Amino acid sequence: MFEDKRSLTSLSELGEFGLIDLLTRELETRHPETAKGVGDDAALLDPTPMQQVLTTDMLVEGVHFDLMYTPLRHLGYKAISVNVSDIAAMNATPRQVLVSLALSSKFTLEAVSELYAGILAACRNYKLDVVGGDTTTSKSGLVISITLIGQVAPGKAVLRSGAKPNDVLVVTGDLGGAYIGLQLLEREKAIFLENPKIQPDLEGHDYVLQRQLKPEARTDIRPLLEALEVTPTSMIDVSDGLSSEVLHLCKQSKVGAVVYEEHLPIDPSTYERARELNLDPTTCALNGGEDYELLFTIPLEQHSRIKGNPHLTVIGHITPAEAGAHLVSKSGTQVALVAQGWNPIGKEEAPEEKD
Amino acid sequence: MFEDKRSLTSLSELGEFGLIDLLTRELETRHPETAKGVGDDAALLDPTPMQQVLTTDMLVEGVHFDLMYTPLRHLGYKAISVNVSDIAAMNATPRQVLVSLALSSKFTLEAVSELYAGILAACRNYKLDVVGGDTTTSKSGLVISITLIGQVAPGKAVLRSGAKPNDVLVVTGDLGGAYIGLQLLEREKAIFLENPKIQPDLEGHDYVLQRQLKPEARTDIRPLLEALEVTPTSMIDVSDGLSSEVLHLCKQSKVGAVVYEEHLPIDPSTYERARELNLDPTTCALNGGEDYELLFTIPLEQHSRIKGNPHLTVIGHITPAEAGAHLVSKSGTQVALVAQGWNPIGKEEAPEEKD
Repeated sequence: MFEDKRSLTSLSELGEFGLIDLLTRELETRHPETAKGVGDDAALLDPTPMQQVLTTDMLVEGVHFDLMYTPLRHLGYKAISVNVSDIAAMNATPRQVLVSLALSSKFTLEAVSELYAGILAACRNYKLDVVGGDTTTSKSGLVISITLIGQVAPGKAVLRSGAKPNDVLVVTGDLGGAYIGLQLLEREKAIFLENPKIQPDLEGHDYVLQRQLKPEARTDIRPLLEALEVTPTSMIDVSDGLSSEVLHLCKQSKVGAVVYEEHLPIDPSTYERARELNLDPTTCALNGGEDYELLFTIPLEQHSRIKGNPHLTVIGHITPAEAGAHLVSKSGTQVALVAQGWNPIGKEEAPEEKD
Repeated sequence: MFEDKRSLTSLSELGEFGLIDLLTRELETRHPETAKGVGDDAALLDPTPMQQVLTTDMLVEGVHFDLMYTPLRHLGYKAISVNVSDIAAMNATPRQVLVSLALSSKFTLEAVSELYAGILAACRNYKLDVVGGDTTTSKSGLVISITLIGQVAPGKAVLRSGAKPNDVLVVTGDLGGAYIGLQLLEREKAIFLENPKIQPDLEGHDYVLQRQLKPEARTDIRPLLEALEVTPTSMIDVSDGLSSEVLHLCKQSKVGAVVYEEHLPIDPSTYERARELNLDPTTCALNGGEDYELLFTIPLEQHSRIKGNPHLTVIGHITPAEAGAHLVSKSGTQVALVAQGWNPIGKEEAPEEKD
């Protein structure tokens, strides 16, 4: 991963406090309620009239990422994005972040600095204050644990549980790209492992690679919906795959849903790469995961307000619970939606558990 | 670790959502500001007039704990305690917690349930609402990442930076016990590895073992000091060893300190076990770490209010920065305090870096 070891600094030379000092030297405070950030037993936030949202995600080497093809800077950025995505899915604005890292001994100061540079780039982009964290060694791989705090005006948070029959089902952006990006990276890794002289062939795949390696959370959607005077009744982010998320909304809102295959937003480059890889683009969109788009429902009467918006695609609607959750294929057949998305505990979920 | 595998449930049978459902089934909400806990993209807290404190700690198998001698239930309890200790060191009250676990495939449902039972026991004891977390697999060991949120009346938080010359330096409880407990466990482990037929000999060591395996955070100190009308000027929890913490207070308050060896509170059982292990009890108290007691400073004029209190020991006083931080030994010699406490990044800190 790091070819030139001549001038690299080992972490044990530096010690925990030395490393923390270095990493936190340039932290800026962006929000007035951040009274005290890094440097004490705990961070201190002033009270605000806003409700707070809290989310946490853990990324584990070998489970969530492969350092063989994941640039550390992108990884740091992504670790923040995936948490910001959860905050965006609550209709909230991200504010403060706690960053914990468990680093194996192969990590040099230069490597940690790359990772941290990505984290800080994301903090700048999403306007986050880094207010705390923990840094330790790990006996094996890298573990990144991020906790994110956001705020939302009282009563404005959007939960998974508010969808009603006849609501329109909307998804942002496009789906399946991150999964295709992962397949390309895995393919090139396999070729490289077989013959290290062959250089990876990733040219022209920028879009799907960026979707996998450096996803952007949809913090643009909350202000967009506000401007359009659209109020989502339920919302979730698409991390495990569209099918899985539709089923979560249905379960928690006690409703059913119909999704139309023909309306699934799939970028042309995702579509083409899927075909080249002999994958069904629809399956990639439904079960690929890691898209970090937002899936939400809006009342039918607000449908006209989002029509034609390039960021938003109506993919179906909500039905009574008894109808279950279905996909209507391009040929018109109706099949039950099944959560076959990625599952970090290892089991593909069976359809009968979810309906 | 788990002898009888006949009726154990593998985590992959259960899946991530099944595991989360099982673990979070019995969660209670104790605090009115917890508007929405586990089950959405993020937790939701109502605004309060209080300031908030935030802390996070990561515990890594093989670095922070050894599952060969650490009961999972105690480990879960300790993971919460060490974070509560940071909140207590801010003069704050713990309220909400986020629990993230990375589990290796050797973990069965029964093992995770034990760990979680310890976490929940600590949450009951410290009156915490579990409002979120993440559960994933790990390619190797267990990683526990806890984020804790506390609250404190505006202006009442106690930072590390408020100590003034002539302030009295006070520590709660006694020191060095957790380190001695660790040495005993490591000794018995070494004997067992050499000869698995020899049963561990840990009888009569309850106090130091409990100090290591199931520490209690000093949430009793904030109300005690309030009742005594004592206002700490600075505070920190003793996690890395007393020397290290005194140096932190000195650095952040820009002061020096004198600590008297003869005043260091050491429990008789810690003292005796240290002697049996050929360890210097003073060194254990200064550098042992993991005591999770509180170290704080109070104005000289409040000294009389704490005199004779069985929970509080005056161990020295604050001096101007130029005087540095010193230990006065029982024989009257003065030596510079050196942070030789445990360091998860691996380097013992050199004295010249700290003064």
